[in-house]
Formats: sequence, structure tokens, C-alpha cells
Amino acid sequence: MITVFKHEAGSTQCVNAVDPAWIKPDSGIWVWVDLNEPTPEESKVLTSVFRFHELAVEDALSAVHHPKIESYGDYLYLILHGIDFSAAEHCFRTKDVDFFLGAQFLVTVHPGVSRSIGKVGDICRRNGRVLGEGPGVLLHRIVDTMVDNYRPEIDKLEERLDFIEREVFEHPGPELARRILNFKKDVASLRQVVLPQRDAVGRLARREFALVGEQLAYRFRDVHDHLVRLSDEAMFFQDRISSILDAHLSSVSNQLNAVMKVLTIIATLFMPLTVLTGMYGMNVPLPHLPGGDGAQFWWVFAIMISISTVMLVFFRRKGWI
Amino acid sequence: MITVFKHEAGSTQCVNAVDPAWIKPDSGIWVWVDLNEPTPEESKVLTSVFRFHELAVEDALSAVHHPKIESYGDYLYLILHGIDFSAAEHCFRTKDVDFFLGAQFLVTVHPGVSRSIGKVGDICRRNGRVLGEGPGVLLHRIVDTMVDNYRPEIDKLEERLDFIEREVFEHPGPELARRILNFKKDVASLRQVVLPQRDAVGRLARREFALVGEQLAYRFRDVHDHLVRLSDEAMFFQDRISSILDAHLSSVSNQLNAVMKVLTIIATLFMPLTVLTGMYGMNVPLPHLPGGDGAQFWWVFAIMISISTVMLVFFRRKGWI
Amino acid sequence: MITVFKHEAGSTQCVNAVDPAWIKPDSGIWVWVDLNEPTPEESKVLTSVFRFHELAVEDALSAVHHPKIESYGDYLYLILHGIDFSAAEHCFRTKDVDFFLGAQFLVTVHPGVSRSIGKVGDICRRNGRVLGEGPGVLLHRIVDTMVDNYRPEIDKLEERLDFIEREVFEHPGPELARRILNFKKDVASLRQVVLPQRDAVGRLARREFALVGEQLAYRFRDVHDHLVRLSDEAMFFQDRISSILDAHLSSVSNQLNAVMKVLTIIATLFMPLTVLTGMYGMNVPLPHLPGGDGAQFWWVFAIMISISTVMLVFFRRKGWI
Amino acid sequence: MITVFKHEAGSTQCVNAVDPAWIKPDSGIWVWVDLNEPTPEESKVLTSVFRFHELAVEDALSAVHHPKIESYGDYLYLILHGIDFSAAEHCFRTKDVDFFLGAQFLVTVHPGVSRSIGKVGDICRRNGRVLGEGPGVLLHRIVDTMVDNYRPEIDKLEERLDFIEREVFEHPGPELARRILNFKKDVASLRQVVLPQRDAVGRLARREFALVGEQLAYRFRDVHDHLVRLSDEAMFFQDRISSILDAHLSSVSNQLNAVMKVLTIIATLFMPLTVLTGMYGMNVPLPHLPGGDGAQFWWVFAIMISISTVMLVFFRRKGWI
Amino acid sequence: MITVFKHEAGSTQCVNAVDPAWIKPDSGIWVWVDLNEPTPEESKVLTSVFRFHELAVEDALSAVHHPKIESYGDYLYLILHGIDFSAAEHCFRTKDVDFFLGAQFLVTVHPGVSRSIGKVGDICRRNGRVLGEGPGVLLHRIVDTMVDNYRPEIDKLEERLDFIEREVFEHPGPELARRILNFKKDVASLRQVVLPQRDAVGRLARREFALVGEQLAYRFRDVHDHLVRLSDEAMFFQDRISSILDAHLSSVSNQLNAVMKVLTIIATLFMPLTVLTGMYGMNVPLPHLPGGDGAQFWWVFAIMISISTVMLVFFRRKGWI
Repeated sequence: MITVFKHEAGSTQCVNAVDPAWIKPDSGIWVWVDLNEPTPEESKVLTSVFRFHELAVEDALSAVHHPKIESYGDYLYLILHGIDFSAAEHCFRTKDVDFFLGAQFLVTVHPGVSRSIGKVGDICRRNGRVLGEGPGVLLHRIVDTMVDNYRPEIDKLEERLDFIEREVFEHPGPELARRILNFKKDVASLRQVVLPQRDAVGRLARREFALVGEQLAYRFRDVHDHLVRLSDEAMFFQDRISSILDAHLSSVSNQLNAVMKVLTIIATLFMPLTVLTGMYGMNVPLPHLPGGDGAQFWWVFAIMISISTVMLVFFRRKGWI
Repeated sequence: MITVFKHEAGSTQCVNAVDPAWIKPDSGIWVWVDLNEPTPEESKVLTSVFRFHELAVEDALSAVHHPKIESYGDYLYLILHGIDFSAAEHCFRTKDVDFFLGAQFLVTVHPGVSRSIGKVGDICRRNGRVLGEGPGVLLHRIVDTMVDNYRPEIDKLEERLDFIEREVFEHPGPELARRILNFKKDVASLRQVVLPQRDAVGRLARREFALVGEQLAYRFRDVHDHLVRLSDEAMFFQDRISSILDAHLSSVSNQLNAVMKVLTIIATLFMPLTVLTGMYGMNVPLPHLPGGDGAQFWWVFAIMISISTVMLVFFRRKGWI
Repeated sequence: MITVFKHEAGSTQCVNAVDPAWIKPDSGIWVWVDLNEPTPEESKVLTSVFRFHELAVEDALSAVHHPKIESYGDYLYLILHGIDFSAAEHCFRTKDVDFFLGAQFLVTVHPGVSRSIGKVGDICRRNGRVLGEGPGVLLHRIVDTMVDNYRPEIDKLEERLDFIEREVFEHPGPELARRILNFKKDVASLRQVVLPQRDAVGRLARREFALVGEQLAYRFRDVHDHLVRLSDEAMFFQDRISSILDAHLSSVSNQLNAVMKVLTIIATLFMPLTVLTGMYGMNVPLPHLPGGDGAQFWWVFAIMISISTVMLVFFRRKGWI
Repeated sequence: MITVFKHEAGSTQCVNAVDPAWIKPDSGIWVWVDLNEPTPEESKVLTSVFRFHELAVEDALSAVHHPKIESYGDYLYLILHGIDFSAAEHCFRTKDVDFFLGAQFLVTVHPGVSRSIGKVGDICRRNGRVLGEGPGVLLHRIVDTMVDNYRPEIDKLEERLDFIEREVFEHPGPELARRILNFKKDVASLRQVVLPQRDAVGRLARREFALVGEQLAYRFRDVHDHLVRLSDEAMFFQDRISSILDAHLSSVSNQLNAVMKVLTIIATLFMPLTVLTGMYGMNVPLPHLPGGDGAQFWWVFAIMISISTVMLVFFRRKGWI
Repeated sequence: MITVFKHEAGSTQCVNAVDPAWIKPDSGIWVWVDLNEPTPEESKVLTSVFRFHELAVEDALSAVHHPKIESYGDYLYLILHGIDFSAAEHCFRTKDVDFFLGAQFLVTVHPGVSRSIGKVGDICRRNGRVLGEGPGVLLHRIVDTMVDNYRPEIDKLEERLDFIEREVFEHPGPELARRILNFKKDVASLRQVVLPQRDAVGRLARREFALVGEQLAYRFRDVHDHLVRLSDEAMFFQDRISSILDAHLSSVSNQLNAVMKVLTIIATLFMPLTVLTGMYGMNVPLPHLPGGDGAQFWWVFAIMISISTVMLVFFRRKGWI
């Protein structure tokens, strides 16, 4: 679907169909063209009206790309990633939004509904002055909304991490290992998406491109700052999850130790007793043994109790019980 | 709460309420405005009197931010972190203090009491000449006090580390793993806070900003040096704790080895004896066995002792006992 | 085998044998010479006709080299790696293709059939205008095809990784460890080949060499982008496989734990029973024991059941069963 | 204690007390002031005579600092670390020496006896021409001696490492883990001290400061080279010790494997025999069993031998014995 | 031993003793002086004839140094490492060769026979024109030969690695851990030697020194390329060996798992049987038990078979057998 916002002399028009002739990026007039899952027909606007470089158009229309920024002389081509809210609950997914920024236009291309662009579009429709700030400020507005949407996802990741950390000493086991593995995968995705995004926005903030003025650069510095924080948090998550993995391994080892101690105590207590009862059960005459009469049983019993006591004292000393 | 120190012609005035007209950052006059948990009313000073950039003001009034330094032309915006003394005992927490430094003013914003600022404020009240050194020196004084406050916390961390190191060979177990995990988390927080702080102060020390003169740069170089040492120590702690974790894992494994050796020795000693007593307890005639008369029991006993001795010699050779 | 494409005044000639005099890299004329497993005779073209530097020629004719780019004044020497489709199924292998790029010529040297060069050669034969774009664009065309060929191999690697990830919790064991080891080796090969390739193409994209104009640089930037993505994916694979290895180790440990618990439960249940039956089997009078008459057997049975029940409750509490 | 060497017109004077007026850093005259655990009285020389920056003086008189170099305009402030020979035998400790280098003076401050400075002082007393080379060469002489003193300590570390490596396969155990932990701590200290020292001397060698001429820079390049080698060795030690730790863990695991195999073999050999003897010991008629007469015992014995043999063959096949 | 090659007007002279006056590094004449384990007498050539800097001479005559390159104005001082062929078979060792390169001379110093220098010397003796190319080309010739000698050693390392990889799943054990440890040590030595060598030659290839012209730089770029490949291979070896170590640890754990399963199966099969035979062996009347007559034994046998079958089915389900 194509949506075109045209800003001319303080007023804003918004139409859903597009007539190439109508989009006139002229002096005092500027347009925002939003392509949401463009049909081949609609996507021709990119080449026929704006005459973008074929490689950039190809990238914009193709499947997921990594965030990046590229200058093609008089316009910038920017790929960023927004949160994919259609993904499963405990899962971190993003999808790409492509931007073409010129002096007189902003073109956004995205494969499916984007919450951030939808929200900014609504604001523009209600308030005509918003578009009056120009394409750069509009780009910042969209990017800022996209980056703000990361926050709740990061919080969800942190909750999952806290949950894993609590479980590690309470219910270590295969299920937890699987959770740790999934968490690591999600954090790796986060980093893979945030790091190049941070660098791309950083180049805007450092005013590497003539299209970005000083005031606009201050705004992008703020977004850059948010992205730096996100990437720091991703690093921090990675550190924590690997500490937790170590704790998990040591927790499993400790559990094994505990199990083995129980086994060893049981075996050490009962094996001598088995031999003892076996000795008194042999079909051989027992000469001169203590208690050759009716008290014999109690003698055996006393020896058993002594052996067990000695063993228990020994384990106590070793700190096993 | 808002506190305003005004320095004019060698004398210092300090008031707690503020009349915007009264704050005149004029030639020969300079002010220090301290905002401690500012009410919305009080925080208007930032925009109405000083006209700071809206993004900086937003950052200053919002929740925790990472340390950073930013130039807005004729003033600097600086975020640093001080120790949060209200945190639990065995826990490392920081909170942010925001600074606006201009040629004629210093504005500090912090969410709750800051020991360092309180201390410097007391000195200013008692000694009028302190403020006479100008906003840059005052900033250095506050930052220096904040960084000095890290020292006792670092020492506490080192004590915890020494304790963990002693325990690792004496009481390895789940409790220790939990301690190690917590320690790693605290050191990660420390690094996360000290590293960007070091970089921000480093930019002051390298005189990247026109507001900082040579003499002031020497002072900030000293603070930078302290922060470099803190970050080195954080690195060192990380190294040590991961060595300790390795030692812990090897300690747990060794313990398991020790337990298994006991089990194996016990089983190996008593299992043959059980079979032996079992053989003499069978309901089958024992022809031609040694000791068919009363001496039989002692024969069995002798065989048992021999088997045990052979086993013990074997284990001795293997170095298990 | 040697193949020579000669482009002159809009028309393309293609011959398989070469007469040195015929290759005239003159104004308006340019040639593409493709050497596929050149005979010593054929490879003399490099020195006699083009007078390339002896070291570059030696490299081009010798065994596998790492990707690199080198300028020899008026021509570039470039080594890239293409997928080796002749390798075994579950195995990642590459082989090198060498390029000499001048203003009037492109020379390609490769030890055996190269799918990418074969494909581009076919296109050139069918469409005369392709060569008309000049040696740089032809180089880009070949390199682009080579890099596109990596995609299905990367997908195969990802499938193998997904398979390993599924297996890690279901069938951990020596076979899986072997698969992980092989996978790591293949990813290391991939990185070893992609990283220098990315850097070499990056130098073309940044226009470090006078032979590459702006429009050509845009094209190489696109290829560079693909290579960056490939190397990012290789990094991501490395991260994932090492997470999986950790999960594998923890899975093996958990399995061991489970086995040990079964053993301990069995031993703890039956050892006391053995001692009990042993006691009642001793050749000693059993005075005052409960059940001295026919009910005795049931008494023993009751004690056994009680012991077992207590044990089972104990294990239940520990969460083992 | 304060020691002052004064070099004037080719002759050297050395006194232990100091009269501020006597220290005249004038043309043709230069002084070396050595402060060994200075009293507050003595340390006033730094501020009153030389007028060093208060922050540098504070650093010089305070507790241990990290190695660094700082320029204060017409003099350099340098902190290096020398070996602390008063430390315990198997322990790596350093202490700091502070230098102030000017065109006409060298001031050294250290908390306690320094072997290197003592040695250079003796040489100066005996040979008047040594001081004639100027403050820079004297600084190099001291620093060179200090760095040379690291060599025997490095050799001791290497001996400890070799010892640990031999022990790892022969006596793995808790004691070895403790040694590894201590070694890692010492190597970390070494790196922590050598790396900043290398960087500080590297800045002298690269002639970043006007006080250091070309010939002097050659000398410092040599010292820098020594320090690079020391830091390389520290890296190499770290690599080796972590390899050894891995070997240690695998050694402990192998030992556990060996122990478990013995246990399993014993249990597998004797458990069936116990059941067999138990069967023949039951109070039930044994109908139709082989050997109902006196040969019965031998039959049982034969079955036992057969079972054991089968088991042993099975283990042999598995490669356990 | 000292060997002097003197090249004058197209002809080469070679003598083994040296008369200082005879070595005239004059216009049109140049000399190559090779010092093989120089006597103190011979090594005086360095200072008396060539007047090299005392620090460089000291380095050249002292024990092993790390590879490096240093400029002393009109000559270069270069340390490289060649393979030490006198080392034990399965062992990677190098020894240093020192070079002084001037416009009119090349001086080589080495502690013992160097294969590369010997080989180049032979070529010079046979072919007078070789020396005619000048000192820089001669240096390249020697360095190239030295670097070529690394190849067979690298191949030997790879063979050892392949061997270890095969063994890891077939014969994991202490011997393999020792091999891995030794291999890691050798690869670390390799990296420690190749990395600085690569950097030193890289500086020659980048023409950082005036003595190296463009054509010579092309040659050194080729050597640099070889060294880059060697260091890449060292990295690759390190990666592979650490993957193999992981596989080894997981292999040992899997083996332990297998052993424990055998133990658990045996214990679980035979322990219930022991209790059963114990019950029927008690000296107590067995009322109402099944099979109170001669069929009793078969009843017991049937119960045993049933228990065992149930157990085996249970293990089968768990996937242990």
C-alpha cells in the first residue's frame, strides 16, 4: 500500500493512491512517500519518480538486510530495524524499514505494517505543522519511535534473565539449559541488529552527511545515545548469561557431588554389615566367637551399630553430612 | 529542593528558594544551582532561566543514564555516577548526577541526596573563597569527591573477593557459586559505570572543550588517572573472579574424585568378602576345602584379610590412599 | 585451457586458442583472457603479452592463496575464493580465482572449472553488449556471481547448525561432538576466506585505486555489503555453535546426574533390605525378635516395605523422583 | 632520607642533608635529588625548591600508583615500578619509584630502599663522569637497572610454571589448583605493572617530549624493547597457564573415569557371583540342578569362573583394561 | 666464523678471514659480512669497521631476541627468526638471525649454522651476478629462504593436529591431554615468532625506510604475504586445537556417562535378585509362599527373570541400551 503526504505552504495533504505527476519534489513543497508491502506497480515510484540507484532500490525491495547507511550523492539510503511485534511471545525478532532521505523528500519502504510509521503517520494527519519541520526531522521522529519500541522488549529480556538466574540454583536441568540457549540466541540477534544501527545513526549524529544540520544532529545524538545504551545492555546481558551458564554448570556438578555422597554413605554403611551377616550365616562352625549362646544375636547387633557409628563420625569429619 | 549559590565580587550568597530574575549569570557574577529531586516547578529553571537544549533537560530529569559528556556550544552537559550509599550492604549500586557547565554557571541535578554535593556545598557555605575559583574548579571539586567515594566500595569488593578465594578450597558448594555470581554482577556494574565515566573525564583532561583551561585540565587529568585505576582494578577483579571460578570448578571435580575413591575403595574391599561369605553359606557340600573342621572359620578369615590387604596395596600403588 | 574475448567497436569475438600478436590491448579495444588450468605454454601469456610482475604471476600459477588485492601501478592483482562445488556433501571448501585488472584488459586464472566464470562467459558469448561495459564492470559481474554462490552454502551450514541444536538435548553423545567439531572447522574456513575477501573488495568500494570510478565503486559497495553480511553470519554461527557446545556439555552432565540418581535410588532401596535378609539368615538364635512363630516372615516383609517407603519419601523430598 | 648529587663543571658533590639555597639548578650545574622515604620536612624540597605541581607532588608522596608519564610543561613526571625484593619467596610484588625530570635536575622519590637507585648512586659516587652525561642519561641508567631486575623474577615465574606443568599429570589435586590460582594472580600483577610501564617508556622512546633527544631516545627504545619482551612473556605465561588449567581439568576428569572404571569392573564381576551364591544358599529344594551330589560345589565354582571370564572379555573389548 | 663477500665492478670475492682495511664500503663496491658464532675478535668488526650503535651490537651478540626492525639513520637493524633444525623431532624451535642493512653493506650475525644463509652463500659463490643486485635484494633472498623453511614445519604441525583430532574420539586419555598441551605450546611459540616478524617485514614492504625502493618493496610484500599466511595458519591451529580440547572434554564426559550406565544397569539388575535370594535364605518359616514344594525353586527363578526383564525394558525405554 502506498501513502503520500505532501506538504506545501504550511498545509498537509494525504492520499493513498499516487499519480507520478502529482509528486513534485519542488521548492517549498516536499513529500513523504510510505510504501507498505508495495506491489510491483507501486514500487515503480522509486525508480520512475525519484530515480534512486538500482542497487539501493533492489536492496529496499528484497528480503531482510543488516542496518546500514549509504550516501548516493544527493540522497541517503538508510536501513534500520524495528521490533517485529508479530513474533511469538518469548522471542526477539526484528524487521527492516528502509529510508531514502533527500532535501525535498522522505521515502519509507517496509514489508508489512510498522507500528512506528503508523503512529507518526497518524500524528501527521492530525497536526499539519509536524510535516512543516522538514524531511530530516520527520526521519528523526520515526527513528526515535522505532528505538523507543526496543525498551519494552529489552525489559522482557531482562525479566527472562532474572527468571533464569533464580532457577539456576533451584531447578538446574535440561529445561534450563534450553532456556539459556534460547536467551543467548535472542541476545545475539539483538546485538547483531543494534550494533550496525548504532553506527549508522552515529554517522548521522556526527554530521558526516551534508543533509543533516546542527540542530538535527543534536536530535540524532540523542537517538544514538539510546542505541549505545541498548548495545551496552546487550553486552551486559551476554556477560550475565555466560556467568549464569558457569553457575549452572557448577550447580549441576554440585548436585552430582551431593548425589554421589548419598550413594557413598549408603554403600559404606551397609556393605560392612552385609559382610558381617554373611559371616554369621556361613555353614561353618563358629568357635570361640563372642556370644556363642543366645546373646550372640545382640553381639552382632552391637558390632553393626559400632561400625555404623564409626562410619558416620568419619563422614561427619569430612563434612559430608 | 533547589539551592542557589551566587558568587559576586568575592562574596557568596546561598538561598534555598529561587527567583528567576535573581539568577543573573552576568560578568563578574556566577551561580551554582543545585537541584535535588526538583519539583516540576523548580526544574523549570533549566529551560526558562538557562535555556538549555530540551533533549539535555529531558535527559537530566529522566531516570538513570550512562555517564557521558556532550557539548552544546557554549555549555557542556555531563552525566556522572556517584556511589548510592542507600543500597544494601553487600551490593554495589550507583546513581547519576547531571552537570551543566557554562562560563558563568554550574547547574547540578540529582534524584535524591548526593553526599559529594552536600559536602562541597557545606565547604562553600563556610568558606566564601571556594566559589571564587570559578565553575570549572567547582565542578572538579565535586567530581573529585565523587570519585574518591568509590575507593571504600572498591575495598569492600576486594574483601568479598578475598573471602570467596579463601572459601573456594574450604567450602566449595552452591552457596559459593551464588556469591561468585553476585560478585561478577557487581563488578560488571562497576565497569559499566566507570568506563564511560573515565572516557568523559578523559575528554575534559585532554582539553577537547574550550571551557577547560590548562590548569583545570591538570586537575581533571588527576581525576582521570583515578578513574583509569578504578577501571584497571575492575578488570583485575574480573580476571581474578574468573580464575577463582575455574578453581571452584576444579575444586568441585576434585571433591567428586575424592568421594568416588572412597566409594570405590569400600566397594572393592567388601564385595569380594560378600561373595566369599556367600560361598561358605551355600547349602552344598564343601568337599576338600581347606579347614573342614573347627579351624575352617579362621581359614575364611585369613582369606578375607589377604584379599583386603592385596586391595589396599593396589590402591596405595595407585596413590588413592 | 585458454579463452580470449576481444571487444572492439561494439562487437565481441571469442576464440579458444591464442596468438600473442592478436591480443592487442589498444585504444577502443579490450580483451578478457580466461586461463582455466593453464598449460605452461598458455601461462606464458601472462609474462610475454601482459608483462605482469613475476611475483604476481608466480602467485597466480601456484597453489591456494589467501584472498588479497595488490596494486602494481597500472594494473591490480586480486585473489578471491569461490565455492568448490566438487567437494563432499557436508563439507565447506573453496578454491581461488586470480584476477589481473587493467584499463584495457581483465585476465582470470583458476585451477579448474569455475562455475561463476563459466556462467559470465556464456552471457558474454550470447550478448555482445555485456563486454562493452568495460573490464571493471566485467570484474564486478564475475565477483558478484561468485559471492552469490556463497548463499546456498551458508544456508546448508545453517541447516546443519539447526540440526545440531535439535540433537543436543535429544541425542547428546560422541557422534554429536564429532559433528560440532566438523561444523566449527567449516565455519573457521568460511571466516578465513570471507574476512580477507571482504577487506579486498572493501578497498575497491572505497575507491582506493584509480582504476575504479564512482559508478563502479557503488557496485562494489553492494558486493562488499554482501561479504560483510556473510562474515557477520560466520560470526553468528561461531557464537551459536559455542553456545550449543556449552549446552551440550551441560546436557551430558545432566544426563550423568540422571544416571547417578537412578543408581543411588536403587542402591539405597536394596542395600538395607540385603542386610535385613542377611540378619535373618544368620546361624544364630534369634531371641525375643518380633514374630518368632510363623508370622515372622510377614514381619520381615513389613519392615522391608517400611524402609523402602521411608527411602522413597526421602528421595521425593529431594526432588529426585 | 635525602641525598643530593650536584654536578658542576665536571666534578660531582654528594651530601645527605640539604640546604634549599645550595640546590641551584643553574646553567652548567645540575642536581640529582634522591628522596628515600622522605620526612615531611624533606619532602618540602619538591614544592619549595622545585615548585612542582601540587597534584604531582601529592601523587609522588602518596601510596602506590600505576606506572604513567605526564608532562608539566618544562618537566616530566614519571612513575615506574621496581621489583619489591622484600616480598615473600614465591610471590611477585613491585613498588613504585617516582621521577621528576627537568633540563637541569632529576628528582627521585621512593617509599623505602630501591636497589636500582642505590646501585646507580654508588656508581655516581665512585665515577664523577657518570653524572656528566646529564639528567636524561641518568634517568635511563636507573630505569635500565630497574627493568633488568625483572629478569630473575620472570625466570622464577617460569620455573614455577614448569613445575606446575610437570605436576598436572602426576599429582593433579586441590593443592595444584591453589598453585595455579596463585600463579595466575602473580602474572596478572606482572601484566598490570608492565603494560603501562611499557607505554610510558614507549612515549619517551618515540620522542614525544622535547626533553628527550635522539641519542637518548635510542637508549629508551632499548628499554622499551625489554619491556615489550616482558609483556610478551607475561602474555605467553597467561596462555600457558590457561592451557595447563584445561589440561588439569581434563586430567581430573580422566582420573575420575579411571576410578569409575575400577568400581564398575569390581561391581560387575562380583554382583552376579553374589546372586549365584545367594541362590545356592536358599532354604528351598534344588531339584534337577547340575551336580546334586558332592560335585555340586565345583559346578558352582565353574559357573562363577565362566561369568567372570565373560565379563573380563567384555571389558577388554571396550578397552577398559 | 667470519665470511666476507666483496662485490666490485661485477666480480665477487669471498674470503674467510678479515682485514678491516680490506672491507671498504666505497662507491661501486659493497660487502656482505657473515658472522657465524663470532669470536670476540671477529665481532669487533661491527664496532670498529661499521661503527654500529653499541645497543644494536649488544643485541646482535646477546641471546635470543624477539623479531623487530629498527632504523639507526643510515642503516637498518633487523632481527628475524629461522627454524632451528637441531631441535627434537616433535618440537617447534627457532633461533634468531640479525641483519644490518646499509646502502653499501649487509652484515648478518647468527649463533650457529643457519641453513638459509649457508644456501644463499653457496649460490653467491657459484654465481657472481647474484651479489650484483645489491644488499637489499640479497637481504630479501635470505629472508625469503628463511620464511620458505617454515612451510615443512607448519605441515608437520598440521599432521600432529590431524593425528590429535583422530585420537580424540578413539583414545581420549591423559596421553592425549599431554599432546594437546605440547601442541598448544608449540603453536604459541610459532605465533610469538611470526607475528613480530610479519610486522617487521610489513614495514619494509610499506617502504617506511628510504633504503627500500619500489621494486624491492614488491619483493618484501611477497614475503610479508607469506608471513601473513603463516600467522593466519597459526591462528587457525589455535582455533582448531581449542575446539579439539572441547571435543576431548566432552568425549571424556561421554565416556564417563557410558561407564556409569554400565554400572547402573549391572547394579539395578542384580541388587533385587540379591534381596530375593536373601529372603528365601532366611531362617524363618515361609508360610503360604507360592511353590512350597519342589517347584519352589522354579518359582523363584521365574520371579528373577521377570524382574530382570522389567528392568531391561525400562533401560531400553531410557535409551541406555
